Formats: sequence, C-alpha cells, structure tokens
Amino acid sequence: MFERSKPKRLRPGMRIGVVAPSSPVLERSRIDRGVARLERLGFQVVLGEHALDSYGYLAGQDSDRAADLLQMLEMEHVDAVMCLSGGYGAIRTVAALDLPRLRRLCGRAPIPFIGYSDITVLHAVLRRELGWTTFYGPMLSSFARPTEYTLAAFQRALMETEPFEILPDPEDPYTRTVVPGEAEGELVGGCLSLLVSLMGTPWEMETEGRILFFEDVHEEPYRVDRMLSQLLAAGVLQKCAGIVIGEHVACAPTTGNSLGLEQVFEDLIRPLGIPTLYHLPVGHGRGLATLPLGIRARLDATNRQLRTVGPGVL
Amino acid sequence: MFERSKPKRLRPGMRIGVVAPSSPVLERSRIDRGVARLERLGFQVVLGEHALDSYGYLAGQDSDRAADLLQMLEMEHVDAVMCLSGGYGAIRTVAALDLPRLRRLCGRAPIPFIGYSDITVLHAVLRRELGWTTFYGPMLSSFARPTEYTLAAFQRALMETEPFEILPDPEDPYTRTVVPGEAEGELVGGCLSLLVSLMGTPWEMETEGRILFFEDVHEEPYRVDRMLSQLLAAGVLQKCAGIVIGEHVACAPTTGNSLGLEQVFEDLIRPLGIPTLYHLPVGHGRGLATLPLGIRARLDATNRQLRTVGPGVL
Repeated sequence: MFERSKPKRLRPGMRIGVVAPSSPVLERSRIDRGVARLERLGFQVVLGEHALDSYGYLAGQDSDRAADLLQMLEMEHVDAVMCLSGGYGAIRTVAALDLPRLRRLCGRAPIPFIGYSDITVLHAVLRRELGWTTFYGPMLSSFARPTEYTLAAFQRALMETEPFEILPDPEDPYTRTVVPGEAEGELVGGCLSLLVSLMGTPWEMETEGRILFFEDVHEEPYRVDRMLSQLLAAGVLQKCAGIVIGEHVACAPTTGNSLGLEQVFEDLIRPLGIPTLYHLPVGHGRGLATLPLGIRARLDATNRQLRTVGPGVL
Repeated sequence: MFERSKPKRLRPGMRIGVVAPSSPVLERSRIDRGVARLERLGFQVVLGEHALDSYGYLAGQDSDRAADLLQMLEMEHVDAVMCLSGGYGAIRTVAALDLPRLRRLCGRAPIPFIGYSDITVLHAVLRRELGWTTFYGPMLSSFARPTEYTLAAFQRALMETEPFEILPDPEDPYTRTVVPGEAEGELVGGCLSLLVSLMGTPWEMETEGRILFFEDVHEEPYRVDRMLSQLLAAGVLQKCAGIVIGEHVACAPTTGNSLGLEQVFEDLIRPLGIPTLYHLPVGHGRGLATLPLGIRARLDATNRQLRTVGPGVL
C-alpha cells in the first residue's frame, strides 16, 4: 500500500511557521502564550503575514489566508508549518488556493504540517496534491496551555524516529472495545464534520483497507448520526479495515428525547463488524494525541491499542 | 429535459396516508389538530402503523419506519402520502428500505408524496428510484396550525391543475434580487443540510441546468458557509441555471465574531453570476409554500418571480 513521503524530524533550533487558514484567535495573549511555549521547546516561531487578521469567523480574507499558507510552505528557512487554530474556513482557503503553485512543492522535501479540527480539510488537500505525511495534532492555540500528555505526544510523533503507540491520556484513560479484532493499514481521518464536508469534492477521503479515526466537537448526537449515516450511504465506513472513535467533546444531547452518542455508535458502527476502538485522546479534549496521517498503523481493538508501524518522521 | 411523472390532483374525499420517517411528534394534541385540519379540508387521514412510535430523536426503529413508508406508498386506497414531521432520521429510513420492493412502484401511477426539511432525503430517493414529481410542502405537524398562506399554497400546488407562482408571504413579503436574470429548468432542492448529507451517496442531487432552491433552520452562519463551500468545491452550485434562497430560520449568529448569513450569500453565491432570488417563503417559516419537485419552473430573478411552467398535478 502507498505510504506517503515523510518529513525529517523536528529538532530544537528549527523554525516553525504559523498560518491561520481557519478562524482567528481573538485573544492576543493566547497567541503569545503559544509562541512562548514553542520557544521553550527550543523552536523559533514566525507568524504568517495575515495570521492575526480577522473577518467574522474567518482569520482574514480567503485570498490572504491562502497566500500565507502557500508562502509558508514554500519558505526555505521554515522547517514546519503549524496552524494557528481551527474553527471554520479551511475549505474557503482551499477554494482560493493557487493549486498549480501548490503542486510545485512536489519537487521539495516534505516538512511537517500540523493542525487538527477544521485543518482536516488541509490534511486532505496536502495528501491528495503532494502525498506528504502530515500531522493531526496541536495548533499554536493548543500550546497556550498544553497538558503534559499533549506535549509528550507531540514530541514522540514529531521529534523521535521510533514507531509509537497512541497512548490513552492518564487523566482520562477510558478506552473500550466496540468490535474486537486487529487491522493494519494507512491511518486516515480527522474531524468528522470536516471529513463529511469533503464528500463529493476532489478531496473526498479514501478509506478502503485503511484505519479511520474520527472525532468532533459541539455536534448533537443527531448530527453525528446524520454524518455517520451519510458515510454509510456512501459506502465509506464499510470499506475501512479498522475504526478508531476519538473524543466527542460537548456532543451530549441538549434535548430529552435524544439518543446518546454511544447509542449512535452502537446502532451504526458496531453492526459493521469492523475492529473498532472507542475513546483514544484524539480530538478536542484536554489531552491531545499527535497522529501522523498516511503512515501505516496497527489497530488491536481487542487489546485497545493503536500503534504506528514505522515512525512519522525520518 | 426530463420531466418527472406527475400524480393526479388531490380532491376532497381522498385518503391521505401519514408516515413518520424522521423524528416523532411527542405531543399527541399536535397530531390530532393536524388530522382535524386535513379532515376539514375534506380528506380522510390514515396513520401508518408506527407513526406514533418513538426511539430517541427517531420515530421508532429504522425497519418499522421504512416498512410503514413502503406499505403506505403501496396501499391501493391511499391517494397521497404525507409525512408526520421532519427532524432527523430519513436517511436511516432509506438505509433500511427494501429498494427492490420500492422500485416495483414504478409500474404504478404516482401519488403525491409531501413533506419538507429532513424529508428532502426521501424526495431525492423517490426522484432517483421512481421518477415521481413530489411535493416540498407542509407535513401533518404543519397542519396543526397552518397559516392562510400555507393552506392556499398547498391547495394551489396539489388541488389545482394550473401553472402557478410561488408567491411571497403577505405577512413577510420581503424578496430581493441577488443576481438579476432569468432561467428556466427543472425545480430541484430542499433543506440545505440534507442536500449536503446526500453528497457522495447514490442520491446526490443533480443541478446542471436546473433551478435550485435551498433553505434551512437552526444552522449558524459558519455552518451554512461550510455547506455552500462544500457544494462549490463539488462543482454543484456553479452548474445551476438559477438559484432561489429560501428562508433560514433561527440561523442568526450566536457569537459576536460571526459573518451574517447574508454576507455568506454575498461571498459565496453572488460571485457565481447565476440568476438568484432571495427569500421566498420556502422552508421553516410561518408561511410555507408547496413546491412540486421535478417539474419545469421559470425564475425571473430581476422581477423577483418564481413560476411553474406547467401544473404540479394532472
């Protein structure tokens, strides 16, 4: 199976470029805290020209967000690109992106691209257009007050060259086998609402024979139900080799006559009979794992373990 | 262009079967009021076997909702099928549907199928599988307390055999030209979040050369933005001959740093240069138009008019 090209590992002294393809961070102190935290890890941080812009729920105009992203990916002395924050807007950034110019990056060694949530869209685009291994993990805003778990997971995925396990968060170590069994395949996934928003577009996710993880935030159970039902109607979930259900933060019902989220998974995921693990710290929780997208991983749903087969970086 | 087969007009004395493919109506009085109102229009009303069932946000088990729908469509002495209510669940009903059995209805004269909101999914399935003209309009729950406008629009679309205009609601007659121009084509559309939830599935909407209407309820502007951006990324909106933006009820921003919904339309719809009319009473407002889906319609965005070319019923 195709394994995407991996970037070199991050080392102290390297320069991390920060871009804002989605929503703005309105509190400047949160940005400053994030920068300071990355600097304490030994990195230099450079903000994109429009990283502090704001236009409603967007971090500035589409064309500026797109230009910043491209420019940062192209800069010779930038060793990694991290996103400022999620929210919404990456798909509008993609619509404004100069794709031929992006594709010229194919000739360049990959660098780590890091973010989660709304950034799911950009992972899909970089996957399709460049074939890079990218990293579903913390953003600058996450570094404002990262937990020990988040920091350790980030360093393990991006600064070390060993295969590793996506560990449970000691602060909330709950994991559960939904369907027992083992699977090995390319690790794909992201935030469910964004994965679904790519359906029918050129960046629709391929899941056949792969290990899919998904997570979300602020979605009522009926919305998660609708999204999973869409993926089922499209035949996307049935083709997975394995499934990892990440965290679903603030997804509790707000009305009395709702199904609970776990009932939704029981109704829609369990009958597939695909090895499925529930509740690794992937997503919008306090502790946040960093997952290399596009590398091979091994899921042992019976023993509640997800491990990479190789490292995420070289 | 293909025009779907039209049912015979509704006449007093006819029997309307009511099914619940989506969410339940928990207040029995609302159902009783709806039945009484339809009876006052001269119809007989028969409820599906599981129309009063309830399972969380679903009106009973998927298999029961699917069986009720099929049975009602097949019954010889049922002259129209109306949905109980929207909410969520139609896509799960479709997943449980016996499609070969549904397809056998091809041999039968079409009857009016009526509903809106979540029922968008069933309109798409009946369109694809049977080629029927169906009706985007009020449900039994809407008849609990219909406005004069809603009743008149229902009667015009389903009980009269003349072409007609989708009139503004006199209680809120605001309409606006977003992009001037005229277009003629098959009328397609529905509730935006459901149209989007069909992307990538066998029931994905075809829009080429058609007049698309969409509406929604309880969606923040960033969500509407995301859905429209998905349709743009998939090339769906660009192919329309004309666009009608219906009502968007309770879609105002809940945070200060949001774009307004009309700004979203300005950013994403206006640049298409496709004749576009804003704010006909289609959707979740007090006054609710009834639109025959699949018939030819003529949009004059300049003069803010949407008319059917022929009648919706024979």
